[in-house]
Amino acid sequence: MDKKERLKYGIIGVGGIGGYYGGRLANAGFDVSFLLHTDYNYVKINGLRVESCRGDFIVKPIAAIGSPQEMPVCDVMLVCLKTTNNYLLPKLLQHAVGTNTITVLLQNGLGNEAALSAMMPDLRLAGGLAFICAWKAGAGYIVHADYGMLNIGGYNLTETDMETLAQVQRDFIQSGIKCTLTNDLYAARWQKLLWNIPYNGLTVALNTTTARLMQEKPSRELVRRIMHEVVNAANACGVPMNAAQVDKMMEMTDTMRPYSPSMKLDCDAHRPLEIEAIYTRPVQEARRHGCEMPCVEMLEEQLQFIQATNAIVVPVTPNAEKTAP
Amino acid sequence: MDKKERLKYGIIGVGGIGGYYGGRLANAGFDVSFLLHTDYNYVKINGLRVESCRGDFIVKPIAAIGSPQEMPVCDVMLVCLKTTNNYLLPKLLQHAVGTNTITVLLQNGLGNEAALSAMMPDLRLAGGLAFICAWKAGAGYIVHADYGMLNIGGYNLTETDMETLAQVQRDFIQSGIKCTLTNDLYAARWQKLLWNIPYNGLTVALNTTTARLMQEKPSRELVRRIMHEVVNAANACGVPMNAAQVDKMMEMTDTMRPYSPSMKLDCDAHRPLEIEAIYTRPVQEARRHGCEMPCVEMLEEQLQFIQATNAIVVPVTPNAEKTAP
Repeated sequence: MDKKERLKYGIIGVGGIGGYYGGRLANAGFDVSFLLHTDYNYVKINGLRVESCRGDFIVKPIAAIGSPQEMPVCDVMLVCLKTTNNYLLPKLLQHAVGTNTITVLLQNGLGNEAALSAMMPDLRLAGGLAFICAWKAGAGYIVHADYGMLNIGGYNLTETDMETLAQVQRDFIQSGIKCTLTNDLYAARWQKLLWNIPYNGLTVALNTTTARLMQEKPSRELVRRIMHEVVNAANACGVPMNAAQVDKMMEMTDTMRPYSPSMKLDCDAHRPLEIEAIYTRPVQEARRHGCEMPCVEMLEEQLQFIQATNAIVVPVTPNAEKTAP
Repeated sequence: MDKKERLKYGIIGVGGIGGYYGGRLANAGFDVSFLLHTDYNYVKINGLRVESCRGDFIVKPIAAIGSPQEMPVCDVMLVCLKTTNNYLLPKLLQHAVGTNTITVLLQNGLGNEAALSAMMPDLRLAGGLAFICAWKAGAGYIVHADYGMLNIGGYNLTETDMETLAQVQRDFIQSGIKCTLTNDLYAARWQKLLWNIPYNGLTVALNTTTARLMQEKPSRELVRRIMHEVVNAANACGVPMNAAQVDKMMEMTDTMRPYSPSMKLDCDAHRPLEIEAIYTRPVQEARRHGCEMPCVEMLEEQLQFIQATNAIVVPVTPNAEKTAP
């Protein structure tokens, strides 16, 4: 990529993550195109309102784009869709991605880059983990309640691409986002799974909050046992983790306010659950490395059952055509 | 025990199990005293009505007893309480049990005899497993929907006691109950756990029926994995079981009608769950023999959480005084 003063950003998936991080960049003066579908008309007229614990703001005027075909070619595409909608990405990225574009998957779970790479082999991919409590509360209306750190890393990037990614980091920091750059995205994904695997699934399976899970001794012990399974699996997969990290994660969660993880919000809203990225792939990956995760696999099966019986409907995703597969 | 023409039976816990089996014995002309509490006045006047797939009947007149102090000394006490109420047994059995009485625990789970024996060391104990779908549908009103086989065995009985237990078997058979006598109660309890552990807990944890569990592939696989854990644990504890029994149990359940196991009924009625007998003790027993049951332990922890958050109230148990511990 040629060196530029300013990177041109695109946002796909303008929910809590895409709305907040894209909004912060736009609010700091960066060039950000937001791909919208159901909220397009509303946002184009009213802008994007972000109610944030770090200070409210509104992005207006806004580069709101109504269809993938109208997206400009971007230097950096931030993909903030739920992983359950990644099958739409070939269509959604088609026009926005040029030969020099870096696509960053700001998504939970394992193996998202590999799966997308199999569909679109030419993509130059990075990934990121968002440690944030944020959600879309209405059309063009994002609420950011807590946290906000980003950790990004390259997947199949060249050295030049990595320089661009470092610029992305600087742009985030300049926009008021705490952002770190990891040189081991795979390890970073396992680190985040240490929290996501117990709390996302158990709040759904037991219809509760993180705080209630931590209050009751049996569920607290279950959280701990599941975390230890993740630690064992990560180590089997070559990612060093230890029991001290389990203690630290438990303590961190103890200090959090009662909180519904994203999968709980998805379940309550009858949206598809991110089971494959957060459960199925880690279990398979661990097994490939000779490590079983019996409790995580059980949680996966329970979530599949809940999804199958909980009237989950495939939503109209942002910019997805209604005839999408 | 002296040989008698007829054994004198006592029933503690006149729910689906106690009402049906006690009712069958009484209906066949055996001497059966029913210890009742909340339904005492109703049953004394109206008798005990049993609506059974094997033919309806009503026990009237009936030897209804209103308090443990008024119970006659019995030759055979059939304890049909939920195990969660076993702490009441020293008080409930006090008058009915003489030096020659055999107390038979017709209950699910593991270790009930040992736990009661620790509280009442002089008891002559047997146990039994009821393969039945029956419940109390109202005051003095028992519904028997399906099955009905009994399997009984001695726990700490003498040879003479075992002869009495054989007479109990004959009495059941004469009353129209298919009844077998096992010489390995411990193995029989593990055999029944093979069904109870997956289906009782998962119908509660996933708020569903056995039929739905069998219909969905992920939950079906989970049932199978949990059964295999039980098979491994039983083998570790010296009880031979094999994978063919898992297949057989799955097939048997496939042919059952949609069915809520007793723990699901308990949960829906906000009654205490039989977690200790069906989950905690088998997990501990297996661990003592060097075998872990990770999924069963996870299910136990989930059930403990559900019980703690599901407004479970300790009910007024039959004949329990309100000041009971």
